[in-house]
Amino acid sequence: MQNFTFHNPTRIIFGEGQIAALNAEVPREARVLITCGGGSINTNGVLAQVQAALGDRAWFVFSGIEPNPTYETLMQAVAMAREKGIDFLLAVGGGSVIDGTKFIAAALKFEGEPWDILEKQAEVCDAMPFGSVLTLPATGSEMNNGGVISHRARGDKLSFSSDATYPRFSVLDPTVTYSLPSRQISNGVVDAFVHIIEQYITYPVGASVQDRFAEGLLIILTEVGPQALADPHNYSVRANLMWTATLALNGLIGAGVPQDWATHMLGHEITALHGLDHAQTLAIVLPAMLSVRRNEKRAKLLQYAERVWNIRQGSEDERISAAITATRVFFERMSVGTRLRDYEIGGGSISTLVAKLEEHGLTALGEHADVTPEVARRVYQLAV
Amino acid sequence: MQNFTFHNPTRIIFGEGQIAALNAEVPREARVLITCGGGSINTNGVLAQVQAALGDRAWFVFSGIEPNPTYETLMQAVAMAREKGIDFLLAVGGGSVIDGTKFIAAALKFEGEPWDILEKQAEVCDAMPFGSVLTLPATGSEMNNGGVISHRARGDKLSFSSDATYPRFSVLDPTVTYSLPSRQISNGVVDAFVHIIEQYITYPVGASVQDRFAEGLLIILTEVGPQALADPHNYSVRANLMWTATLALNGLIGAGVPQDWATHMLGHEITALHGLDHAQTLAIVLPAMLSVRRNEKRAKLLQYAERVWNIRQGSEDERISAAITATRVFFERMSVGTRLRDYEIGGGSISTLVAKLEEHGLTALGEHADVTPEVARRVYQLAV
Repeated sequence: MQNFTFHNPTRIIFGEGQIAALNAEVPREARVLITCGGGSINTNGVLAQVQAALGDRAWFVFSGIEPNPTYETLMQAVAMAREKGIDFLLAVGGGSVIDGTKFIAAALKFEGEPWDILEKQAEVCDAMPFGSVLTLPATGSEMNNGGVISHRARGDKLSFSSDATYPRFSVLDPTVTYSLPSRQISNGVVDAFVHIIEQYITYPVGASVQDRFAEGLLIILTEVGPQALADPHNYSVRANLMWTATLALNGLIGAGVPQDWATHMLGHEITALHGLDHAQTLAIVLPAMLSVRRNEKRAKLLQYAERVWNIRQGSEDERISAAITATRVFFERMSVGTRLRDYEIGGGSISTLVAKLEEHGLTALGEHADVTPEVARRVYQLAV
Repeated sequence: MQNFTFHNPTRIIFGEGQIAALNAEVPREARVLITCGGGSINTNGVLAQVQAALGDRAWFVFSGIEPNPTYETLMQAVAMAREKGIDFLLAVGGGSVIDGTKFIAAALKFEGEPWDILEKQAEVCDAMPFGSVLTLPATGSEMNNGGVISHRARGDKLSFSSDATYPRFSVLDPTVTYSLPSRQISNGVVDAFVHIIEQYITYPVGASVQDRFAEGLLIILTEVGPQALADPHNYSVRANLMWTATLALNGLIGAGVPQDWATHMLGHEITALHGLDHAQTLAIVLPAMLSVRRNEKRAKLLQYAERVWNIRQGSEDERISAAITATRVFFERMSVGTRLRDYEIGGGSISTLVAKLEEHGLTALGEHADVTPEVARRVYQLAV
């Protein structure tokens, strides 16, 4: 096990009916800015529950945070928060809304140009307190301190994190996910699955705790993912999906182990070039990435095959291939295509994708920093 | 899954050499009271490392916190902290030292008679900030907010917890456990194992995440426990043991599930009457408790048999019996006797033990509150 620091102060309030707990969590005298995305929380009753819980506190709504939240939009929220004298932010939505709210919180307390937080990785020493009501199990943003923000005008997509940008609390009510479109459930399951894989399938460092936790979460996703599509109102299924997606990226399974994240980086370029959903790009890249890097990842791939998929027969390479195939089949069972051609993208894009990685300085990715542009090209080629 | 709130703000600093990190964690201007137990930290180099890390801060040492920390001793530490103008406490030790330091921290900020925190469960709204350097993997106190304190004069042993009594940080350096006596390793493994069981073997509530995490931790203990005895300087083994014992009782696997704790209660009476180590009493009571309550716990016992011990053959009752036997064999492999007679205690004590449970009002224990004195008697009888 590698040395690590683990610290996660977010309070999780989990279960049916827990939106009402906002009344105890949001400071009594707070002036609250509710931040949200599109209109679904207006129609599915979530916003009404939130407003009821806030009672006679002064609250305002900033809506329109996009799926890939932009600096431009978020700075409008910063202006509104200042104008209204806001002192508490409440994100109501999925990962994009929560990521965006982290940036709003940081920008409100930042001296200087907030874009520096992203471009220059300027230190965020303080942030306005905020909480979240999660509506979409996927990114884990509800229990971590990171955010990914895009600059529409510049075409940049950059991340930041800070000890000051953990949500004070997050409310996780699995019943609010009942009305989600199946595509969002599919994407959420794939997203959480690949978050875990990026922290698990690297090389062994004797971290039994992190491995067992990662394997447990992966097994749960293979079970509840298809059930969540087939039986949308099954509380237990949605509860386990929601808690699993949170724990997939709250720092716990990634503490003390090497991490990869090359699949994410190669996927980001596909989204940027072709507009695919983030999870679709992960489902395309991961099986190809594991195939191309099977030697570097051999020991963990064999462990993954045995413990997650119960694959115990055959040679090492046969077991590894079977585990990669099982992963692909699982994504497709979640109705997420796993090849570029499933999205009508051909091999002609590959040179552009590789050039973009180079342009972004992403030339030494992965846990060994050995995913060079040439390796990335082979991954994209295998993913056609 | 049941509704739950999970919140754990303790910062974990994990790994070899991390005691030096105290310099960054303890406030620069702090006047520090180091709290500790006996003399081992003087001879194994831990206290020297702590003092070196504190540098030129003003620090004082209060030693002599007992294995079952007493109110009388802890109030001496409170007096010393007041006299020396202390504003930060640093527990250096195992669960007893950390439990005791939580009480010192609470008592220092408590208006009125601190014993009320225990006897009257008076609310602890504030506590002096404190951190810990863990020397013994066992109780999980380093990452939770609870403490168990005894009153020597009254013969009471009572617990308390508060949001204010989480350690600010805990340093977990596995190498400091290398010099522990094997009996303390044995006890620590059994203690952590039974902590997990008390939160896991109850009845199913569809909490897949908590189950998978509990099973993972149990499997790790069955692996690293014997290795820790056989190979005391194996870093990876000690690291996984230390992190497992912490996660066994940091609130995570117990959130959203029913909990038992009857084994602990029956064990406490054995300690009180016969002076056995806490873990010894757990090793005695647990196999008998699981046998007596096999019907109430049937579903989870079968799951435990399959997932932790890989027992898949035979009738349900055969599998359950095999799992209970495997548990007993494991404890004995850890050199902890699992029957009263192993400690020269006969059946003649049982009526006294049951009477003590009744005297302490512990007449409806367990996840169904159905462990009556009569059930407890059967458990003790089976444990002879």
